Amino acid sequence: MPHEIQRAQTHALLQKRGIARVLFANLASVKWLTGFNPPIQTGSSPFLGGPPMVWYENGAWTLILFAWHVPYSDDFGAQPNCRCVTYEGYAIEKPLRGAARLRATLRRVMGKNLAGKIGLELRDAPADIALSLYETKRVKLVAVDTWLDAFRQIKTPEELQKMRANFRLTDIGHAAARAAVQVGRREIDVWNAAHAAIEQAAGQRVPFGNDCVVGYRQENSGGAPLAFEIRADSSVIVDLSTLLYGYWSDSCATYYAGEPSPKQRAMHQTTERALEFGISLLKPGAVACEIDAQMREFMRRAGYPVYPHHSGHSLGVTAHQDPRIVPYNKMTLQENMVIMLEPGIYFPGETSVRLEDALLLTRDGAERLTAHDKSLP
Amino acid sequence: MPHEIQRAQTHALLQKRGIARVLFANLASVKWLTGFNPPIQTGSSPFLGGPPMVWYENGAWTLILFAWHVPYSDDFGAQPNCRCVTYEGYAIEKPLRGAARLRATLRRVMGKNLAGKIGLELRDAPADIALSLYETKRVKLVAVDTWLDAFRQIKTPEELQKMRANFRLTDIGHAAARAAVQVGRREIDVWNAAHAAIEQAAGQRVPFGNDCVVGYRQENSGGAPLAFEIRADSSVIVDLSTLLYGYWSDSCATYYAGEPSPKQRAMHQTTERALEFGISLLKPGAVACEIDAQMREFMRRAGYPVYPHHSGHSLGVTAHQDPRIVPYNKMTLQENMVIMLEPGIYFPGETSVRLEDALLLTRDGAERLTAHDKSLP
Repeated sequence: MPHEIQRAQTHALLQKRGIARVLFANLASVKWLTGFNPPIQTGSSPFLGGPPMVWYENGAWTLILFAWHVPYSDDFGAQPNCRCVTYEGYAIEKPLRGAARLRATLRRVMGKNLAGKIGLELRDAPADIALSLYETKRVKLVAVDTWLDAFRQIKTPEELQKMRANFRLTDIGHAAARAAVQVGRREIDVWNAAHAAIEQAAGQRVPFGNDCVVGYRQENSGGAPLAFEIRADSSVIVDLSTLLYGYWSDSCATYYAGEPSPKQRAMHQTTERALEFGISLLKPGAVACEIDAQMREFMRRAGYPVYPHHSGHSLGVTAHQDPRIVPYNKMTLQENMVIMLEPGIYFPGETSVRLEDALLLTRDGAERLTAHDKSLP
Repeated sequence: MPHEIQRAQTHALLQKRGIARVLFANLASVKWLTGFNPPIQTGSSPFLGGPPMVWYENGAWTLILFAWHVPYSDDFGAQPNCRCVTYEGYAIEKPLRGAARLRATLRRVMGKNLAGKIGLELRDAPADIALSLYETKRVKLVAVDTWLDAFRQIKTPEELQKMRANFRLTDIGHAAARAAVQVGRREIDVWNAAHAAIEQAAGQRVPFGNDCVVGYRQENSGGAPLAFEIRADSSVIVDLSTLLYGYWSDSCATYYAGEPSPKQRAMHQTTERALEFGISLLKPGAVACEIDAQMREFMRRAGYPVYPHHSGHSLGVTAHQDPRIVPYNKMTLQENMVIMLEPGIYFPGETSVRLEDALLLTRDGAERLTAHDKSLP
């Protein structure tokens, strides 16, 4: 049943910490707790009264949504112990009242007899709603901003199904991008080809990130696609992520319009080996910073400048989350985590390469979730 | 100089109302005050510590941004009396600290000697920042959420330049959509064709709304594109908006894969006349609800069901704003407002038509800003 495990885990945690009521206002929390997936591509609608929120009270859950968002949600249905309450924001008969109606709906859902500790995601909750609770007699606000983070690291079978669908989409995008990398085309053209292929495969709009940069750009490790033209000697880093069902994928490959130079071939092959080496280290019990250190050491020994970014990261309802594979992070990897690894080599303004796969931690190793062709031409 | 008029107007208003300090946290306000235009297509980045904000203090302005956002801003440069302060959110050497760094930066920018009234956009400010100010001795918070709305209605020459660039993009999108409406293709294919044409023309990513629906969909007045196939007798409503330089365009046309039926022709022609009639009413001094009433009366007299939505609306840093052309709205139109008009006729589940133009209110009438071909085939 949709996201029931997430709510059960959270309920147990809140009981343990003695919090009977919580208002969740962070979009990642709301998505993770309910499976609700709002449209995001055009930013916040002027009809909204605020972010989607979830009210928890002694094991009962209420998702509070702008009325128009319900049909957009691609997988949100009736759920046990989680009702959905909507507010109208827009009507032609009277002024826009999204904010007022959301707040009235919240008051109704939360009831009048508020007392004791109320958990609140203080970084994301609208200030007026928080101040109103703060001023309520006998209410004590408790910041719960990071309380779900640890749970979010371990994926449920339902989450993995959603994520696999996204990785299939990024595979499709990469096939289109690989074909589109041709002399005279521009970064934005490659981007469009990948995005169109993904939306056509999904049969719907799909939010889409991350990078598409030719190697001769000064900042050639990442960036949004622009009008830089692809030349015969260009490398093109294509780093793609999609958001279907509220979960992000990620992936990276490097393509070439012409025959890669010997230098580019060597860089590419070293990066392939670095990625495979990193993957060989992934298993439950492995420590994030040790994997990071070993991957960096691999690059150093191969005689290349060590990439300035993370060796990898996890993802889910956000495109980047813990465990991050970075120098300081002593977290231990566990089964059912999904880890991105993405070594690269960058010669700013000249050429660059990055290759990235997604790995699902299994009982004794890792399963590759990405299947895009990252090989040299 | 970029958005200087906006800051001067706001400064004068704040002086008049006796508010020496304001923290703006609403994205529309931030864009309007500074010209800053953040990327929005993939939602809020996990590296951010909160929304971009603007601090006003006695006529001096500070824009507070996540460091990585600066290069993405397509038109934000050095500005008189408005400095830009950035915070780091992401580094590989230590845990994600966007939230903590943004708050530390805010404290530094705002200084220690806070006293008296501080204006705050209470619907958008993060709760913890508001609570921290609320708990500061001798500080009194004042909600300023809608204070800029009236200013935002009248466009400056700089804003009109940005909006014209967007209307040119929607024209380009419509030309591609019109060509893509063919039997056997799907809504999402038409959408992709329009979006790709727009991004290719812009040479960069462009956030993109609104609707692409075949007439035989039950809800055929709007909606995101899906996998509905275009048939020989299909009407296809294509309602497009773009966001370049922080400003939205809007536009709508209706296309046909085959020869429109006599009923579709009559509907289309009536809608064309309704739109031209509406445009003929636009001039400074005209009252929004009277235009709305006359356009609805036009449809009624033509023997069609009156569209259930607004007759039109304004737009700018948001895709929908006052003056709305709706039954209750007694606002008077003024020179340099931009008004969308969009009459339509809907037979749910069968066929539908909507046509929409953008009009700039001039001294004695209106200039059309959209130039897409809305005619029958």
